[in-house]
Amino acid sequence: MQRVIWTVVAAFAMAIVLGPIVIPWLKKLKLGKVIYELGPDHAAKAGTPQMGGIIFALPALVAAVAFSYKDAEWGLLLMCLVSAVGFGAIGFIDDFLKVKKHSSEGLTPKQKLAPQIVLSVALAVWAYLRPDVGSSLTVPFFKVEWNLGWFYIPVMVFILVGTVNSANLLDGLDGLLGGCALFDFITMVVICLALSAADPARSGSLLNVAIFGGAMAGGLIGFLQYNSHPARVFMGDVGSFFIGGALVGMCMVTRLSLLLPIIALAMFLSSVSDLIQFAYFRATHGKRFFRMAPLHHHFEKCGMPETRIVAMYYIVTVMLCLLTLLGFVA
Amino acid sequence: MQRVIWTVVAAFAMAIVLGPIVIPWLKKLKLGKVIYELGPDHAAKAGTPQMGGIIFALPALVAAVAFSYKDAEWGLLLMCLVSAVGFGAIGFIDDFLKVKKHSSEGLTPKQKLAPQIVLSVALAVWAYLRPDVGSSLTVPFFKVEWNLGWFYIPVMVFILVGTVNSANLLDGLDGLLGGCALFDFITMVVICLALSAADPARSGSLLNVAIFGGAMAGGLIGFLQYNSHPARVFMGDVGSFFIGGALVGMCMVTRLSLLLPIIALAMFLSSVSDLIQFAYFRATHGKRFFRMAPLHHHFEKCGMPETRIVAMYYIVTVMLCLLTLLGFVA
Repeated sequence: MQRVIWTVVAAFAMAIVLGPIVIPWLKKLKLGKVIYELGPDHAAKAGTPQMGGIIFALPALVAAVAFSYKDAEWGLLLMCLVSAVGFGAIGFIDDFLKVKKHSSEGLTPKQKLAPQIVLSVALAVWAYLRPDVGSSLTVPFFKVEWNLGWFYIPVMVFILVGTVNSANLLDGLDGLLGGCALFDFITMVVICLALSAADPARSGSLLNVAIFGGAMAGGLIGFLQYNSHPARVFMGDVGSFFIGGALVGMCMVTRLSLLLPIIALAMFLSSVSDLIQFAYFRATHGKRFFRMAPLHHHFEKCGMPETRIVAMYYIVTVMLCLLTLLGFVA
Repeated sequence: MQRVIWTVVAAFAMAIVLGPIVIPWLKKLKLGKVIYELGPDHAAKAGTPQMGGIIFALPALVAAVAFSYKDAEWGLLLMCLVSAVGFGAIGFIDDFLKVKKHSSEGLTPKQKLAPQIVLSVALAVWAYLRPDVGSSLTVPFFKVEWNLGWFYIPVMVFILVGTVNSANLLDGLDGLLGGCALFDFITMVVICLALSAADPARSGSLLNVAIFGGAMAGGLIGFLQYNSHPARVFMGDVGSFFIGGALVGMCMVTRLSLLLPIIALAMFLSSVSDLIQFAYFRATHGKRFFRMAPLHHHFEKCGMPETRIVAMYYIVTVMLCLLTLLGFVA
């Protein structure tokens, strides 16, 4: 656990140092956010630089690699890294195009989805072929392994694509995704440490995954210094996809993907509310179920102050994470 | 650890339920905050009810008593409870008088200090006489016990009075004291669990102290739902003294009072900045060292937004708490 703490501290320190270097540079590159025209009244946020995700992504990568146990199995860690970096790269391209075109349109939805699916299939097959991951998912709180056979692959692809896009949707208010994801990573660290202590065969392997989670947590704490309200930088798609990829990667390699709707309920509801809004709009030929989707914008339209919505999301996430931990600690 | 989690959840649930009952009632009693005239521009905060501390104090007390191990030694828990309730009661009287007089003047400084010193002497003597607390303080990171002999009593009185008044001084921005204290209580819970596992003789006793910390953490998480920016309620002196008493109580019974300047640096700096301001003002016949004291108001006067100051205090506190934990975990 000491090693995990040092990883958190190292990633945090790097992110804190990176902030004042990266933010002015992003501003100079004219990477200021072009505010989505139909959104709530966020005019004050125009000009805030995008792509700040690199402030936590780079430190998290460096810290995870630097502090991982080289003599232990690091295949699971590698899968997490590939997931985070792979999805993060797709987000980076999207951000970059938005900036070049000076609009809020980067890649088209299809152009985003295609590489996401390719990467997800690769990751799902990789997990399926590894004996220490395999074709099973753990059913939370029942400690039952649910073996899906080859059907694991399409299910995992759905979970991967769903999670990264849900993370992306949740990234709409200052500190919202960063903070909620922070609690998720801390939870996954505790779970990995508990699983590692209970399973000598996968002990080193899971410790390395815990270190990855610690690196993400540390990077995000540092990032929140610059992203908490009023935000000086936004994480952009590079950040939200990186977070989504890192989180779903950790869940995939621990077979705990079914925890995601609980610990990442905030992301889950962002997607679900978007789908409900879309389906209802279609079915009713133009009526809206929520005042605006995803859900956090609905709360904004109802008049809740931004910081209060974020606090509520944090608090609900913390409580769900605590309840989840009940299934893993003595 | 499961029991601690349930304690957190129970205290949280009670606080969440209590909020919408207590806040309108405090408003009706005309307990709205009278904003200190010399303070920063906080006119928007006038009318926010005070004394919201009971929203976390009552749940914390109920949860701590309900979940404690009755068959284990609960003397240390009792000391924590007496410290929290005792100091909280002094704060309650102060708040109550402020409301009755419709001014920001409650008890005079001397009228506050006298009962604080009496209570502190009683607690310090009680600790001194208990063999499982005694006259020693643990020196952080060196794992040395520093035996003060009878000198323990005045030192502990100073620590007790200093901590509760520092907590009181830190309570100046939405969510500031509640959040910083939350991280301190979580840290003390982890430390108590670690000490409990390492010391069979005090195991049950320390588990009960951990449960008290969990109860405080849960109550505060619930309270933050109502106190985070923009605050719907302030904790008042009843809240800040209760927090100070609870925190210093946990440190006293674990002999870890010397951790306070680290994990509670935010409180510590509030007092120190106030003292520097006062001494400098006296020495220079009217010059100010800080634009305003305590320190968080100095940052406000420098133009930092309130929510950003609070986030910074949270982040620094979390990092100091993590570094502190390095001395207690494997």
